[in-house]
This record gives sequence, C-alpha cells and structure tokens, in this order.
Amino acid sequence: MYSQKELSKFFEKKLKEKSFEGSPQQLYNPIQYMLDLGGKRLRPVLTLMGYGLFDDKIEKALPQAIAIELFHNFTLIHDDIMDNAPVRRGKTTVYKKWDSNTAILSGDTLFALAYQYAQKADKEILADVLSVFSQTAIEVCEGQQMDLEFEKKQDISVDDYIEMIRLKTGVLFAASLKIGAIIARASEKDTHALYKFGEVVGLGFQLQDDYLDTFGNEKIFGKKTGGDIVTNKKTYLFLKALEKADEKTKKELLQLYGTTNIDEAEKIKQVKSIFKNLDVDNETHNLIKKYYKQGVQYLNSLNTDENKKNELKKIAENMIKREK
Amino acid sequence: MYSQKELSKFFEKKLKEKSFEGSPQQLYNPIQYMLDLGGKRLRPVLTLMGYGLFDDKIEKALPQAIAIELFHNFTLIHDDIMDNAPVRRGKTTVYKKWDSNTAILSGDTLFALAYQYAQKADKEILADVLSVFSQTAIEVCEGQQMDLEFEKKQDISVDDYIEMIRLKTGVLFAASLKIGAIIARASEKDTHALYKFGEVVGLGFQLQDDYLDTFGNEKIFGKKTGGDIVTNKKTYLFLKALEKADEKTKKELLQLYGTTNIDEAEKIKQVKSIFKNLDVDNETHNLIKKYYKQGVQYLNSLNTDENKKNELKKIAENMIKREK
Repeated sequence: MYSQKELSKFFEKKLKEKSFEGSPQQLYNPIQYMLDLGGKRLRPVLTLMGYGLFDDKIEKALPQAIAIELFHNFTLIHDDIMDNAPVRRGKTTVYKKWDSNTAILSGDTLFALAYQYAQKADKEILADVLSVFSQTAIEVCEGQQMDLEFEKKQDISVDDYIEMIRLKTGVLFAASLKIGAIIARASEKDTHALYKFGEVVGLGFQLQDDYLDTFGNEKIFGKKTGGDIVTNKKTYLFLKALEKADEKTKKELLQLYGTTNIDEAEKIKQVKSIFKNLDVDNETHNLIKKYYKQGVQYLNSLNTDENKKNELKKIAENMIKREK
Repeated sequence: MYSQKELSKFFEKKLKEKSFEGSPQQLYNPIQYMLDLGGKRLRPVLTLMGYGLFDDKIEKALPQAIAIELFHNFTLIHDDIMDNAPVRRGKTTVYKKWDSNTAILSGDTLFALAYQYAQKADKEILADVLSVFSQTAIEVCEGQQMDLEFEKKQDISVDDYIEMIRLKTGVLFAASLKIGAIIARASEKDTHALYKFGEVVGLGFQLQDDYLDTFGNEKIFGKKTGGDIVTNKKTYLFLKALEKADEKTKKELLQLYGTTNIDEAEKIKQVKSIFKNLDVDNETHNLIKKYYKQGVQYLNSLNTDENKKNELKKIAENMIKREK
C-alpha cells in the first residue's frame, strides 16, 4: 500500500496531465486556476486508498478520484461566493478574481466535468458509483445550507452542528473511500464499513480544525490562532461551551460574541478562558478520540489484509495527533 | 403516438406525484417553487417522444424526462441570478424571492437531483445516457457563458450567435430526444439523426423567438413586441442587420442601440424600419425554413413507422408557424 504522501504525489501528477482548458476561455480559465491552487488532495487520495485496500491497480480508481477532486473544487468555488471569501489557499478566490457570475457558471461546469469522470466505470458498478456520488453531492449542499443558516440562527444545538459537519465534510470523506472500494469490487459490507470510517474521520478532522484554530500551537499551526473567535464562528467549542455554561457565563460568552467594542487579543483571551474553565478543550479532544476509536473499529471489520489498512489507520491517527 | 399536449399533461401529472420537499426547507422550497411554476415542459416531452418513436412503453423514459426538466430548471435558476431577472413565467424568480446564495445552492442541489433521475436506466445503456447528459450540461454552460459575454462584446458575428443559441438551446432539445431514443434501444444511426433533428429544431425555436419578439402580432403573441429592441439585445435580427447594412445604416442602428435619449415606441419603430429595409425579417424566416427542412430530412431518415414521426413533424412545423 502506498503512503498518503506517495498517493498525493501520484494524483497531483495525473491531474496535471489532464487539461481543463476549453472555450469559452472565461469559463475554463477559472476551473484550471482553481485546480492549480493545489491542496493536500486528501479526498482523491482516500478514493485511491479505498481501492488499494482490495486491489493493487489503483489507476483503475483514478477517474473517480479526479471526479471527487473536481466535485470538491466545484463546492469550494460556490462556497466562496456564498461566504464572501476573498482568499483560498493564499490566493484570490475565483469570484473575487473574476466575478460572481463567472464563479457560478465555472462551478456548474466543473460539477458536470466531475460527473464525466465519475461515469468512467465498468457498467457492472456504474450505477453504484453514481448513486453514492449524487447522494453525496446533495448532502454536501444540505450541509452548506445548514452552515449558511447557522450564521444567522441563535439556537443551534451541538447535535445540529455535528449533523452540519457530517453533511458538509463527513459524507464526502466517506463517499471518496466507498467509491474507491466499489471500483475494486469490495463487498457491500466492506464498502459500507469504509463509508462509516470516512464519515467519523471527516467529523474528527473538522473538530480538530475547530480545536486547532483556538488552541493550536501557533508555531506549529503556522498561522495565528483565534480566528474563529474573532469572526464569531459558531464552532463546536462555542456551542459546547454554551451548552455547559451557567446563565452568567453564557451571558458573558454571548456578549463577547456580540460586541465589536473589544480588542481582538483581549476577546480571544477571555473566550479561551471561558472555554478552558468549562473544560471544552478536553471535551472536544475526547469526542475526536471517540470518533477515532469508532473509525478503528470500522477499519478492523474490513475483510482485507491487515497491513493494507495501515495507511488508513495513520490517517485516522493523524486526526487526533495533527497540530496543523 | 401521443400528441404533444397529451404527453405534456402526462408528464405534468407524473412530476406532481414526485415531491421535492426536504430538509433544510430553505434549500428545497425554492426547488419545489420553481418546478411548480410550470411551463410547456417541451424538453421532457421530447424525451418521451424520442422514446415513443421506437417503443410504446413511454414510462420507461420518465426518469430521464424528469432529469431533463430538473436540469433545465437548474439552469433557469442560475441564469436568472446572472441575468438579474426579476420575473420568470409571471412569478418572482428564485433569487429575487429568496436571495442569490439560496438560488446558487438550490440550483446546485437540483442539478444533483437531475442526475439522480438520469441514472435510473438499465446498465446496458446507462453510460450512453450519462455521456449525453453530461456533455450537454457542459455545452449549455458554454452557451450561457457566450451569451453573457455577448452583452459586453461589440464584434459578434451571426455565426457566433448561431453557435451560442445552438449551445444554449439546441443541444438540450437534441439531448432530450436522443436520450429518449437511447432508452428505447434505438440504433446509433437513429439516435444521432434524432439528435441533429433536435438541434435544428432548437435553433429554429430560438430564431422564431427573436422574430416574434420584434415582428409578432401582439394580439396573438400575447405581449408587447419590441422588448429585445428596448433592451438592446443582440438578437439574430440585429446582428444580421449589422452584417447587411451599409456604413450609414450601421451607424444609425448602433446609435439607436446606444442611446437612452429616445422614446421607446419611436426607437422600436425606427429599428423595425431598418430591419425591414434590410429584409432581415424575411431572411430570418428563410433561415428558420432551412432548419425546418433539415429537421424533416433527419426525421425521414429514421428507421421507424412513418406515422410515429407525425408528432415530431408537427413540432418542427410549429417552429415555422407558431405565432406566440
């Protein structure tokens, strides 16, 4: 089994060999630009790993790995419009560099291109692949809608939040792995277990993101912490804190999230102190560990060579250990 | 063979039986709203007709007919954002009734839902169906991009325009028919001929739209003519006129399209007079007739009962004769 790093390099090389240029240029240039921004390519790597668990010829899952990456980038292009995000991976976002209309339409085209790749499967399994792909696409949209609504809503529960990140992040991790396994003709039991593994790993990843943004070690994290607090983002930490806090602390926390009359550093310090007092940092970590354990159980249940599972185990471990 | 009207009613009934409600409501309500706006349902009817040419059990093509209609509505939702269109079929557009973000995301979801229906085909032909579907989706986006660019561009040729409407309208008419025929297991020769038939009929329909908007009989047309002229739309009539006009007339026409200092009725009158003098009205009609003749040839070439072709012949005839 190849390592995550090797698969990431392999995928990057293969993606570079494809051209997404076309006419009208104004439609295709943003697509090529977005794909050239790079990234860890984690989702397509999961597709290749999902395949690799059951068969060695990982190239067979390459079209679907590309489909997953194209789909992911389509969602990013549209999300950036909706979130008014000016920067993505250190570069100007598509809608800022061009305009909203271009970003809408290039995104749509990228979505269709994703399907063109997803479709490149043997007819025996094509329906299964597409069924997962479309269902996931719909769920990711549902997750984004929930995310948008959460910005304005007041009473969001921790459960609502978990459901939102499951839809927005978990199901695509899950589908990436499952589709790879379907291409390799794994059993339904195995593809399902792998799906569940991906789902909890996705949840763990997102929670770790929340955790690191507030409690990360800035030197290792590579950027300033506290960003979520400054932008009043309703993260797991924040919602869990509200859930646990007494009335007085709750009021304090909501006040901190409602005011603009406070120095950023001071706000971060006070919110972090509330989180710490409520033990929210440890609770977050414990939940991530719970997901990790669930993930390992799903992985153990798979009917394949134990040593082939190692790379996926590492990815699950990384979800607890990573610091950036 | 059922008539267009019968098939339209049949489709409407079947579509109503499906629910597109879901959670989050804010995501699904706009989808249901859009689908409830109605319309002629011409494209899905073409899918049923394409099937009906070769087999009687038209229900077999119903999922793909629905897929085509969902896809079409997805493009309308996104187009209305890009075109800042406040009204569609007499009702407020999705992006106006809700907001841009909702329209983007509901549109995306509708696109994925369209694929969920398109996928419901036997495995022997699934790849063919999806290949047409995705290629068409991409081309429709390309057409919309060209349309957006034309608004700002000066030097658009008549050929550019024809290519734009081929992509924006023709290929979806074509694909609707072809997919129906694929489901009915028609030969490749026949599905191709049917595609070409749909393409020219789509072109003819769009040109007829251009023609009627300027030269239609208001009593039959049901709305005021001259709208395209008032909004300076670069229609076939306008581009053909520019192509044929001498320098003096060209200058006059461009001036009329560039000024806001003129009474609407007066502007319409003057532009129409230029079109008439250049015989652009007749030329448009002749081009539509040319497409009609091509369409009939494609239809004649089909290997199926002659009487089964009648309804499609009527649709082609309608493209010349219709006055609204």
